[in-house]
Amino acid sequence: MPQNRPELPEGDPFGADTLPYGVFTTADAPDRPRIGVRYGAYVLDAAAAAADHGSAHAGLLAAPTLNPLLAAGRPTWQAVRAEIRGWLDGPYFHPLAEVTLRLPFEVADYVDFYASEHHASNVGRIFRPDAPEPLTPNWKHLPIGYHGRAGTIVVSGTDVVRPQGQRKAPTDTTPTFGPSLRLDIEAEVGFVVGTPAPENTPVPLGAFREHVFGVCLVNDWSARDLQAWEYVPLGPFLGKSFATSVSAWITPLDALDAARTPAPERTHPLLPYLDDATAEPGGIDLRIEVRINDELVSRPPFSAMYWTAAQQLAHMTVNGASLRTGDFYASGTVSGPEPDQLGCLLELTKGKGPWLADGDVVTITAWAPGANGARVGLGEVTGRITPAREAAPGA
Amino acid sequence: MPQNRPELPEGDPFGADTLPYGVFTTADAPDRPRIGVRYGAYVLDAAAAAADHGSAHAGLLAAPTLNPLLAAGRPTWQAVRAEIRGWLDGPYFHPLAEVTLRLPFEVADYVDFYASEHHASNVGRIFRPDAPEPLTPNWKHLPIGYHGRAGTIVVSGTDVVRPQGQRKAPTDTTPTFGPSLRLDIEAEVGFVVGTPAPENTPVPLGAFREHVFGVCLVNDWSARDLQAWEYVPLGPFLGKSFATSVSAWITPLDALDAARTPAPERTHPLLPYLDDATAEPGGIDLRIEVRINDELVSRPPFSAMYWTAAQQLAHMTVNGASLRTGDFYASGTVSGPEPDQLGCLLELTKGKGPWLADGDVVTITAWAPGANGARVGLGEVTGRITPAREAAPGA
Repeated sequence: MPQNRPELPEGDPFGADTLPYGVFTTADAPDRPRIGVRYGAYVLDAAAAAADHGSAHAGLLAAPTLNPLLAAGRPTWQAVRAEIRGWLDGPYFHPLAEVTLRLPFEVADYVDFYASEHHASNVGRIFRPDAPEPLTPNWKHLPIGYHGRAGTIVVSGTDVVRPQGQRKAPTDTTPTFGPSLRLDIEAEVGFVVGTPAPENTPVPLGAFREHVFGVCLVNDWSARDLQAWEYVPLGPFLGKSFATSVSAWITPLDALDAARTPAPERTHPLLPYLDDATAEPGGIDLRIEVRINDELVSRPPFSAMYWTAAQQLAHMTVNGASLRTGDFYASGTVSGPEPDQLGCLLELTKGKGPWLADGDVVTITAWAPGANGARVGLGEVTGRITPAREAAPGA
Repeated sequence: MPQNRPELPEGDPFGADTLPYGVFTTADAPDRPRIGVRYGAYVLDAAAAAADHGSAHAGLLAAPTLNPLLAAGRPTWQAVRAEIRGWLDGPYFHPLAEVTLRLPFEVADYVDFYASEHHASNVGRIFRPDAPEPLTPNWKHLPIGYHGRAGTIVVSGTDVVRPQGQRKAPTDTTPTFGPSLRLDIEAEVGFVVGTPAPENTPVPLGAFREHVFGVCLVNDWSARDLQAWEYVPLGPFLGKSFATSVSAWITPLDALDAARTPAPERTHPLLPYLDDATAEPGGIDLRIEVRINDELVSRPPFSAMYWTAAQQLAHMTVNGASLRTGDFYASGTVSGPEPDQLGCLLELTKGKGPWLADGDVVTITAWAPGANGARVGLGEVTGRITPAREAAPGA
């Protein structure tokens, strides 16, 4: 039975200023996924509250995914958020421990960027040690990105089976097949597109808020041995496509207003469609923490990202590509300048490992400064590594 | 009004042995897309025929996309194909000129491969002239591929607006922005996945027919100047994502049985999951023709592809990635060994152009040998280049 509004501990990052959206089921209605809003360690049943209040948005909130709400556009997002604040005093709360959380939206296209200068430089030194510069010549001129596999995006809490595949170390004469021996994480931040854009109508920097609904955390699991062997010349493929984990909660962009911060100083002039010198601050002061088996291994600062989410959206559409509701893009690994701010094991161990072992649990959390000293939380993304399946497939 | 079975010209490649599926509307019911089957220059209204005959598959054939039929699996595909043969004598035919064809299926994930040794070698020589070998060391060990943008796949006949973007020639000091100056085609063959596969259940070579519903033609439009500047290190992105054109007709795999042919001799031993030495012949003897403004510019032979569609499917899933109904993958540019068998202008002009001009119409057709000397056609893929939109976007 749902209960009344719980008391939250002082400083809970999921208070009334946060209110992220997810999709949940309860034990008494396992086949009725519906939209919930996180409040502390509870879920507000937004579908039930909307029905009780005769909300004009009851249909959107009874949907089994966020997509209808995403498609409804920014004025509706703002109206629904205001309504939800008004429902907090009603009997609509389930303890998180008593619900099942689902992937909150149907993913259309998935793009992964490479927006941390620290990460790209560190990786360049490891993967291309003979190159004259760690960054490729294009890196400071455009936010490099590539499409990933939308069909293998999974919700936080889903086990990740160790992938198998081909790898060939430089010292090997031929490739071998087997479970990845260099399984890694990438701590990233993801952006969920709500309002679509037709083809040949690029989204300028200033229209970012019209199109992007909200933010979540991402673990872009990476099999470094598979990736290193396959990625030249067309980019990562099977080294990434086995699983990408995302938070069960999408935090509305508006909840992060107090955390907006200028992006780092640009060292190269930008073409007009990417020039954010006069735009609203494009950075977000998200403080990320990465834990492996409950041990804190890194604190990547999202504010250090060179390329902003608005620039990524502008770049992604500048060639005429359309946007769809449910399009999803991730920042690329978040790494800061310090040794304890690196977002993947490749960097944390300088390419030497140790890598993830079977049974390891990786959990990424983040919060941002809110108004009046409050904290605004992002839903965690967690996953446990399970052993590779037993047999290699034959023909 | 639909009419009776038309007489087809001798040798028509869309006879009773072909029967590809598409989605169409008629002028009297523009909001009722339904499934049709091409027969000569006509469309058999499969939804109407199924309803008249009380077919158990009437629901699948009245759907607005092929996806429900795709999901139904191979026994249903075979049963429906047999039923359609029985409906050819009924009054269900509309002239092609009187219907509107739609994108025939909802695309889930889109993967583009790079399976022609001739193409990859030619491109390697042009893009990486200083490399010791034109092929990268991995090329003969795995079918290289990458994910593309599913949301910008368009049906044959859709105009293609010239994309804009960044490009930097080696002689330029900084990148510039503008309409692509090196707009190209890539003649490819695409494979539509019907039966899904759960995560961590790789699809072996022998299960290809259980999962792949059919085949079509693809024009993977490519802005070579955008691509050359952006693609290191994470692969093609905006140089491809503005549009990918596919046939309006999906030819069932079974229609191509007589065209199966062994793949080229393998010069390197393959890992077991890719070793097709004892599998059914993996090649398909499709004879492709590429025309620009009605002038025949190339005849790429699909039988020359080094990697087969079954190998691509096995590779794509060997890491544990799931397959979804509507997943779509393309072969990569089809090029043969001869100068008149190259599948893109990059190769045909040795990287020097001329490239596509505004107003150019590119049409790719193909046929395969059928039983008893018949031809089995693939639906054409055609598109016209229209000028870039006028203004560059600002912030």
